[in-house]
Amino acid sequence: MRVQIIAHTPEPEQTVAAAAKLCYSQAGAEELMERLSQSDVDRLLSRLEQSGHLSPFEHASFTFSIEGVSRTLSHQLVRHRIASYSQQSQRYVSQLQFGYVTPPSVKGEALAIFTEQMESLQEAYNKLVSLGIPQEDARYLLPNAAETKLVATFNCRSLYNFFELRCCQRAQWEIRALACRMLDEVRQIAPRLFLHAGPTCIVQNYCREGEHGCGRLRARSN
Amino acid sequence: MRVQIIAHTPEPEQTVAAAAKLCYSQAGAEELMERLSQSDVDRLLSRLEQSGHLSPFEHASFTFSIEGVSRTLSHQLVRHRIASYSQQSQRYVSQLQFGYVTPPSVKGEALAIFTEQMESLQEAYNKLVSLGIPQEDARYLLPNAAETKLVATFNCRSLYNFFELRCCQRAQWEIRALACRMLDEVRQIAPRLFLHAGPTCIVQNYCREGEHGCGRLRARSN
Amino acid sequence: MRVQIIAHTPEPEQTVAAAAKLCYSQAGAEELMERLSQSDVDRLLSRLEQSGHLSPFEHASFTFSIEGVSRTLSHQLVRHRIASYSQQSQRYVSQLQFGYVTPPSVKGEALAIFTEQMESLQEAYNKLVSLGIPQEDARYLLPNAAETKLVATFNCRSLYNFFELRCCQRAQWEIRALACRMLDEVRQIAPRLFLHAGPTCIVQNYCREGEHGCGRLRARSN
Amino acid sequence: MRVQIIAHTPEPEQTVAAAAKLCYSQAGAEELMERLSQSDVDRLLSRLEQSGHLSPFEHASFTFSIEGVSRTLSHQLVRHRIASYSQQSQRYVSQLQFGYVTPPSVKGEALAIFTEQMESLQEAYNKLVSLGIPQEDARYLLPNAAETKLVATFNCRSLYNFFELRCCQRAQWEIRALACRMLDEVRQIAPRLFLHAGPTCIVQNYCREGEHGCGRLRARSN
Repeated sequence: MRVQIIAHTPEPEQTVAAAAKLCYSQAGAEELMERLSQSDVDRLLSRLEQSGHLSPFEHASFTFSIEGVSRTLSHQLVRHRIASYSQQSQRYVSQLQFGYVTPPSVKGEALAIFTEQMESLQEAYNKLVSLGIPQEDARYLLPNAAETKLVATFNCRSLYNFFELRCCQRAQWEIRALACRMLDEVRQIAPRLFLHAGPTCIVQNYCREGEHGCGRLRARSN
Repeated sequence: MRVQIIAHTPEPEQTVAAAAKLCYSQAGAEELMERLSQSDVDRLLSRLEQSGHLSPFEHASFTFSIEGVSRTLSHQLVRHRIASYSQQSQRYVSQLQFGYVTPPSVKGEALAIFTEQMESLQEAYNKLVSLGIPQEDARYLLPNAAETKLVATFNCRSLYNFFELRCCQRAQWEIRALACRMLDEVRQIAPRLFLHAGPTCIVQNYCREGEHGCGRLRARSN
Repeated sequence: MRVQIIAHTPEPEQTVAAAAKLCYSQAGAEELMERLSQSDVDRLLSRLEQSGHLSPFEHASFTFSIEGVSRTLSHQLVRHRIASYSQQSQRYVSQLQFGYVTPPSVKGEALAIFTEQMESLQEAYNKLVSLGIPQEDARYLLPNAAETKLVATFNCRSLYNFFELRCCQRAQWEIRALACRMLDEVRQIAPRLFLHAGPTCIVQNYCREGEHGCGRLRARSN
Repeated sequence: MRVQIIAHTPEPEQTVAAAAKLCYSQAGAEELMERLSQSDVDRLLSRLEQSGHLSPFEHASFTFSIEGVSRTLSHQLVRHRIASYSQQSQRYVSQLQFGYVTPPSVKGEALAIFTEQMESLQEAYNKLVSLGIPQEDARYLLPNAAETKLVATFNCRSLYNFFELRCCQRAQWEIRALACRMLDEVRQIAPRLFLHAGPTCIVQNYCREGEHGCGRLRARSN
């Protein structure tokens, strides 16, 4: 898995703070951008988080390049609808040498079976293409494990939701690994903005999964 | 492939027409619902379509049960973000006897290879599960061809967009078949509402694919 | 204020429950619709709520006719983006006799001033129109208090968010009254579906407004 | 009216082009960002526009500071749901000296009436506040003409839709002026990205308003 931020709103924390401040101020956004000190920004972001007023967080966005992930993962990822995706096409890009992701639990005898299947699928795919089957149909053979690449853009508010759901122990290991990597990346750019991003057990001290949780924390009693 | 509408806005055409009429009228929506004749409804819907004012079409929604389609299709389908999906999980539902979709182009020698791979994958999946590999990891073996089930809800405006893109000859055959089936279904319920739904070549007399089009029509000259 | 549901997904609770069940079942949605008893439905909805898996709630939608509310309210209402709106136009519908909403706090001397201004604005608006000023420009005179009508469609999940924010004591009185009325209406149709809808102080036993809360409950400690 | 871009995706054209290229390429997004020449970028963007494949345009976003516009305008603006807004609050920001927008058509006798009303409303608002009426209720007096400030973030694809609808002669003059100003601003940053943005009469040689159009062009015959 390879995750890199290829573009993002410059000065994301100041942008969010200025937009938030504008709601309660006579001043305009430009003036606020210039005038806000880092401690003003910190204080404003903290207040937004505490009161759950997350709409100003939408003004900052982050574009990720994601490679070496499985189609299992990408099918889960694109279910997050408040985001934008461009994905490598299996219709148009030949898979004559497809990469694949092996789950860590697949070891020993299982790994031998798994690897054999991957090789057999590659051979079969190539054979179908050589027989004139269109790539878009030959790919029906390809496994969920097959690697894909995406560019994904999320705003900060949508990332909060993504991290809450996908950094959770109950998420599948692969998308959880991606989410944790993405969180690391955005924190390097905007540490204050993502201070409280993550699963509810860590950032809000309750478990949103209830009786289906991992057991680290009890659910909030209703 | 099996497609059925399991729920929809009752009286979808009257609902849309009343909402549209409200914008330009002193009367309220309830009164309009009662007062509008079928010919009023027809006239209003026609005017909305001609002027491209499609927002009132959002007030009618349709819920589809979709079965016997591939994961290739479902990955494409859920890219339509203005819609709601519930999909059978490969994490939680055992795939010890998975169904699969065979592309019509896969015939003769190719079909023999394809079928052999499907059987081999089934066997390998079952073996991994019996070795204690979690279902959610064993499924990395499963092919794009594997069958899935979904419930999908679209509003009428989002369906217009879906039909424009996916009833087009350039869409992949499987999602095109689904889109055409869905269009048939909604037309039985609301023929007037979907009178001009479909690919641009049929409903607007131009091709949105430009030089990549199927050749049936030329693109609109800019 | 007048609020009526003019259309909604028939059998909304069964539809949501069947969609939810499909995710974890070999059976298809149609079969599930038929097979689920009321107690199955109750149990499924309860589990969805407890675990915060609200996406199946999107399959049920409700269309409201809303009349006799102010433009103050409608400007707040349309900020809820996961919903569909048709609103009476001040460009196209003459306001020669506009209605208006008087806030309950405006009494005595304040009420006399308020009423005088409304009458004066009506007179000025009519005069401008008679001088040939286009309606769309004459309306720049009209007050936030001016009455408007809307048709609004929300799915159940978006309603949960709406009720959480707008049934709260911290919401403005007018939109709070609307939200409470809408909640009453949907509960008559789908009591189980909206059992835990409302402000967090009531349904989750914490206050999302933190130190800005109404004081009924303390905020959740982070 | 004052419009300024206070933040935007850096290198928006390269970002969009790299995301688009990724779909049809073995290479990843980072590599593509480095490798694409300006003429590659131009060619890719041109192809996306011609074929109507606008999803990669979502990866570039623009944040605007907008001041000195009326509440008439802001009520129209926030109807664009694929965007993010922070708006100066009339609940929390005192309007003891509110600015207002005068429509250009309001001249001579009409202007005298209009101005008199504005002054009278200001006086009445201030009086209500001094009588202890909460700001959030006193504002029911305030006119549509009252000035507001916003921060708004749109991605490029949503801007295309915004410019198509709001740069049209049929849009109200004030939001049309805003849209044209916003288009000027984004074109200074990303001229190629917005080459074909604007009303359909200019960029696609047909009128989307049909018989309700301004007459500059005839509607596309269906």
